[in-house]
Amino acid sequence: MKLNIAGAGAIGLLLGAGFADAGFDVRMLTRSPEQAALLRQEGITVERSGEKKVFQVEATAAPGEWSNAELTILAMKSYDLAGFLETAGGRLASSPLLFVQNGVAHLTMAESLPNPSSAFASVEHGAMKTGQTAVRHTGTGPLRIAPGKGDGAILRELALADTASFPVRLEEDAFRLLFSKALKNAIINPVTAIFGVRNGEIAESAELGRLAGMLHAELSGAFPDVADGVSLESVFDLCRRTAGNESSMLADIKSGRRTESDAILGGLIEEAARRGCRLPLLSGIAEMTAFLERRESDG
Amino acid sequence: MKLNIAGAGAIGLLLGAGFADAGFDVRMLTRSPEQAALLRQEGITVERSGEKKVFQVEATAAPGEWSNAELTILAMKSYDLAGFLETAGGRLASSPLLFVQNGVAHLTMAESLPNPSSAFASVEHGAMKTGQTAVRHTGTGPLRIAPGKGDGAILRELALADTASFPVRLEEDAFRLLFSKALKNAIINPVTAIFGVRNGEIAESAELGRLAGMLHAELSGAFPDVADGVSLESVFDLCRRTAGNESSMLADIKSGRRTESDAILGGLIEEAARRGCRLPLLSGIAEMTAFLERRESDG
Repeated sequence: MKLNIAGAGAIGLLLGAGFADAGFDVRMLTRSPEQAALLRQEGITVERSGEKKVFQVEATAAPGEWSNAELTILAMKSYDLAGFLETAGGRLASSPLLFVQNGVAHLTMAESLPNPSSAFASVEHGAMKTGQTAVRHTGTGPLRIAPGKGDGAILRELALADTASFPVRLEEDAFRLLFSKALKNAIINPVTAIFGVRNGEIAESAELGRLAGMLHAELSGAFPDVADGVSLESVFDLCRRTAGNESSMLADIKSGRRTESDAILGGLIEEAARRGCRLPLLSGIAEMTAFLERRESDG
Repeated sequence: MKLNIAGAGAIGLLLGAGFADAGFDVRMLTRSPEQAALLRQEGITVERSGEKKVFQVEATAAPGEWSNAELTILAMKSYDLAGFLETAGGRLASSPLLFVQNGVAHLTMAESLPNPSSAFASVEHGAMKTGQTAVRHTGTGPLRIAPGKGDGAILRELALADTASFPVRLEEDAFRLLFSKALKNAIINPVTAIFGVRNGEIAESAELGRLAGMLHAELSGAFPDVADGVSLESVFDLCRRTAGNESSMLADIKSGRRTESDAILGGLIEEAARRGCRLPLLSGIAEMTAFLERRESDG
């Protein structure tokens, strides 16, 4: 099966290697011709617990060569999605798409595309890009995939890639899959980012715990259909299990990188508004993270 | 006219000097006998634009000597009010009281006291305590006083102290007086404290400006009777006029001191609840400032 993987960041490289390992015919779509050339020459190197393994892939930065894949996995960050689809200029319009973005903002975008089928994934791997063609695999968690538009037959084929170090799980409900993760992210990410604390502090501090509880209550009110599976206790559990970790938003802000706030917080606020619900606390918090993001990237 | 002034911090000392200057018979009520002895010996020294002036006052730390004043001005911080009244042990129960606290939490407390009359003031002076008996007057603004319980006749006498350097203004509506100030404080104080920025940043940053707008909208919804006099534009104006200042909450947090969050944010949240209104954004923000306060005071 021929797979396009668009976006050769940490997650794109990890997925490319995982599916190549499972025998899929992987073609990486990159932004720069240089990275494509390097990937063709060197393949993708995955470092896992100090051991390195190389996986051969095709790669191209030329949109003219992007068509004729059975599935295109969109593995760029949410904020790069619109730019990528514009560059593709309709060449992927007949391809089934698998969206791998964090947050929920891309659900609406996916609906408006002409593609015959689309599916959504959440990635629970930890991965860090260490070079143009190299990724360090820091944590193994399932790639969960769920159908959006279309019958999802192709997802059953993808799920055959499932191994211990690259687990793939089929899920039924894309909305629930993405919103469950976004709800947790919408609590943990901004609270840790605003105060520069690690995840564990939310479970340890009485004040941040109450703040998390208020956010959880607000989100549960807007998304009761999702929140029944994401209890406040499960959020605290996640904070305890990842106590020493920096959330992605905190890490992004500290490094002066763009955060995924629009995709996660903005996406939830918009979807709530579509349901006639306001999220006043989350909306204020989104302005706070936007302020921090701009301040750090300015200076 | 015999005045008790309870609390010999920056504001207590400034008021003591101002009323002594106007010919009132001022007695400072202090917590420590040492400070009372120093005040009796040295008087209150006020430094204004580099010039020092001394005002003679009585002073005592002995609750047995607190009675027989025509008015007691309560000039301690809001969080010290309950402790002071307990120490007084009913000795001030027949005295008219003038409350000078920030925030609105003390309005409810005042209602429950047996005193025949009570009044409320807002202080717009800038003052910094520079010693046990000395205060630097850094900014002149009116002492605004308004009757609470009783006919307020005594306030008209107080207003005779009015001078250019110690302006005193009579106001009609204590609720409006305190809530107008608290609304502005509830926006400027926590936003500057959370991000460690000076007041001007709220008027300059698009994100903090929108955050201030959200807080203003939330508070206006709960207190429409007050908010019509406190436009968002007037809050931005205040931020611009005091652009280089650190808000009191930011200064308190940076110094590891207790903040007036309970009196200002907590008081507004409680009064809104009494009116059947929730303040979700302000409530979350109150947890944030409580977190910062505890973190800084823990060291």
